[in-house]
Amino acid sequence: MAKTLAVSPLAPAAFPELPVIDGVRFASVAAGVRYAGRTDVMLAQLDAGSTMAGVFTRSATRSAPVLDCQAKIGAASDEGAAIIVNSGNSNAFTGKNGIESTRAVTSAVAAATGLPETRVFSSSTGVIGEPLPHERITAKVDELVAALDADGISGAAKAIMTTDTFPKGKAVTVSLPGGEVKIAGIAKGSGMIAPDMATMLVYVFTDAKVPQPLLQTLVSQINDRSFNCITVDSDTSTSDTLLMGATGASGVEVTEADTAFAEALEEVFLDLAHQVVKDGEGATKFVTVQVTGAASDADARTHAMAIANSPLVKTAIAGEDPNWGRIVMAIGKSGAAADRDLLTIRFGDVLVAEKGWVSPDYREEDGARLMKEPEITISVDLGLGQGTSTVWTCDLTHGYISINADYRS
Amino acid sequence: MAKTLAVSPLAPAAFPELPVIDGVRFASVAAGVRYAGRTDVMLAQLDAGSTMAGVFTRSATRSAPVLDCQAKIGAASDEGAAIIVNSGNSNAFTGKNGIESTRAVTSAVAAATGLPETRVFSSSTGVIGEPLPHERITAKVDELVAALDADGISGAAKAIMTTDTFPKGKAVTVSLPGGEVKIAGIAKGSGMIAPDMATMLVYVFTDAKVPQPLLQTLVSQINDRSFNCITVDSDTSTSDTLLMGATGASGVEVTEADTAFAEALEEVFLDLAHQVVKDGEGATKFVTVQVTGAASDADARTHAMAIANSPLVKTAIAGEDPNWGRIVMAIGKSGAAADRDLLTIRFGDVLVAEKGWVSPDYREEDGARLMKEPEITISVDLGLGQGTSTVWTCDLTHGYISINADYRS
Repeated sequence: MAKTLAVSPLAPAAFPELPVIDGVRFASVAAGVRYAGRTDVMLAQLDAGSTMAGVFTRSATRSAPVLDCQAKIGAASDEGAAIIVNSGNSNAFTGKNGIESTRAVTSAVAAATGLPETRVFSSSTGVIGEPLPHERITAKVDELVAALDADGISGAAKAIMTTDTFPKGKAVTVSLPGGEVKIAGIAKGSGMIAPDMATMLVYVFTDAKVPQPLLQTLVSQINDRSFNCITVDSDTSTSDTLLMGATGASGVEVTEADTAFAEALEEVFLDLAHQVVKDGEGATKFVTVQVTGAASDADARTHAMAIANSPLVKTAIAGEDPNWGRIVMAIGKSGAAADRDLLTIRFGDVLVAEKGWVSPDYREEDGARLMKEPEITISVDLGLGQGTSTVWTCDLTHGYISINADYRS
Repeated sequence: MAKTLAVSPLAPAAFPELPVIDGVRFASVAAGVRYAGRTDVMLAQLDAGSTMAGVFTRSATRSAPVLDCQAKIGAASDEGAAIIVNSGNSNAFTGKNGIESTRAVTSAVAAATGLPETRVFSSSTGVIGEPLPHERITAKVDELVAALDADGISGAAKAIMTTDTFPKGKAVTVSLPGGEVKIAGIAKGSGMIAPDMATMLVYVFTDAKVPQPLLQTLVSQINDRSFNCITVDSDTSTSDTLLMGATGASGVEVTEADTAFAEALEEVFLDLAHQVVKDGEGATKFVTVQVTGAASDADARTHAMAIANSPLVKTAIAGEDPNWGRIVMAIGKSGAAADRDLLTIRFGDVLVAEKGWVSPDYREEDGARLMKEPEITISVDLGLGQGTSTVWTCDLTHGYISINADYRS
């Protein structure tokens, strides 16, 4: 990273206290993959009996580690698992060498931990198109294994950072019929992606006992309502990865009926997703876009994403300009059903426009006052049906241009 | 407009000499719709026997004048036609009042020219959601009609500007079997849209005699290869309008077999389209994105637009950074078919990447040198089929943020 970035003004006051999750241990190390003077590789090892699930980028040009994870993730196994992650180099668009580098790293971890290679998952994030100097990572694997510590999760959150201006973590404890279980997660991501520097990686752990198929279902469904509903700049990483491990060490079993577990997991996913938006490159505003009254949920999402990705909407928000005309424009261009004369638009709880025109009660100074807040909600009702969607984004500022144009990683 | 913008560094050296098109006359006037100290309304009147065709924004929230033009455009008529355009106020999202304002303007022109109201077309561009002070326009209609002049087209090009930093015009003369005909066009547009300030309006005139159905076919087809292939910021105006009138005053008839006429028209459309991109808000680079080898033309266009609209690609170009990894990313996210290991990427004629990895012959300094040029071509071959597409865009700079965030219209 060429420059140290100022911490996002939307960052939480502090990294949260993350509890120990029984059955998983963490280590991190400075391997010098690309960055100097900081940790850049993390290892997590999960005990035998753990189940694993994951979701991955849909990019057609996804990286070698993503393809490797996808090939391994569905298998049932009682042998434990490991996750090794490096920052500084994404091992993406590296041809056949990419596959070999991924294999070198995962087989080194397998050898050092005694796990089968099919249970070693890896991620790489950082510069694209350069060969991964995997020998710098494999040289550190024994050191990592020796350092594994149940208390190491916050160190892991720091080791996976690239353009992130703060480490991201979240934990909740939830009471189930069989007892209490814990969920803790870490994430990195600052642009929705800057493929030569950033991407989104998420690792979540629980001591609950969750059968693999149920864990995968929960992860996929909740991902659709959380990480799949955020956008910083509409660009999609070749490396985005979410892996979740359930160690079962609490002895408390989760069934499909345990909505409390799903709700707790959603709380963790949403909080981490929002932290990624709040660390959006150059972000100064956290924006919630709520669409209701669409012809379908899919239409609502199309409208919400059109608003959240519109450069004109995002620059207006950066300028604290209650420019509702740009919202109308974004709805109009989205391609989903809309009737101009049925639209209702609100900033926060201020009614801005209704029935195809600005509301007679709307005063520009009310809109302008709301736009000065660091967190802004834009609500649109289409007046057509029951479809709803909520997405989260940030503004588009000079900071984004500076990070992505003014210097190179 | 709150500030005077510096002229785009990509602007042509001068506004071209536009020839008189027999059968059409122009006038412009300062009506004070919103701007002070400049002309802001233009009128064009076409003689009896003219045919008219047009294409319009597909936005679901299109403006009242657009809806009015669409209702009128297909009709056959021998009665001549008029086009009246104001800048400063787009009469978009103005509810029922918008329809009334459009009617007031077009009926005033009809009364003053003796044309039926069905032959008076109008456009409005500027701030959204504010009532159009149409009485300021109707008060000037007699003055406009009195000032109509065959030589007034360059004045018209200036009257329709909003955030444009230069007026846009282009003309060609073409020899057909029946004789020589002229085509002249003017355009405005600087963001693909900034709905409270900018939009894209295009008016093209010829003295050729073109039957209405053929004129509409030509306009629609060539529009798909020109104005529909440019993007500044992926946002779409609620007011985009292209109107074309063929006066027939040359007596030279155009038939479907006259490919020379179609080619000349395409030259005019493309030149005006490129001028709009070159006046893109904050633009410092004119970028051609050529995609070949896609599974279909539609897939090629999807990839080309994904590259041209990617904020990360556009900021890299702004930073003169030959960041081909972001091209790979954009292809990957586009949703159209791609195989990472078959991709070939070129900057200008420099081979950057092939077969899933950076080319062994590529030297970063060659890419960097090309990126310093004001006009840049990015070529991508998918290696999958015969589909091709070319689109044009500009970079994403601090200037774009400043224009759209730092102050309000």
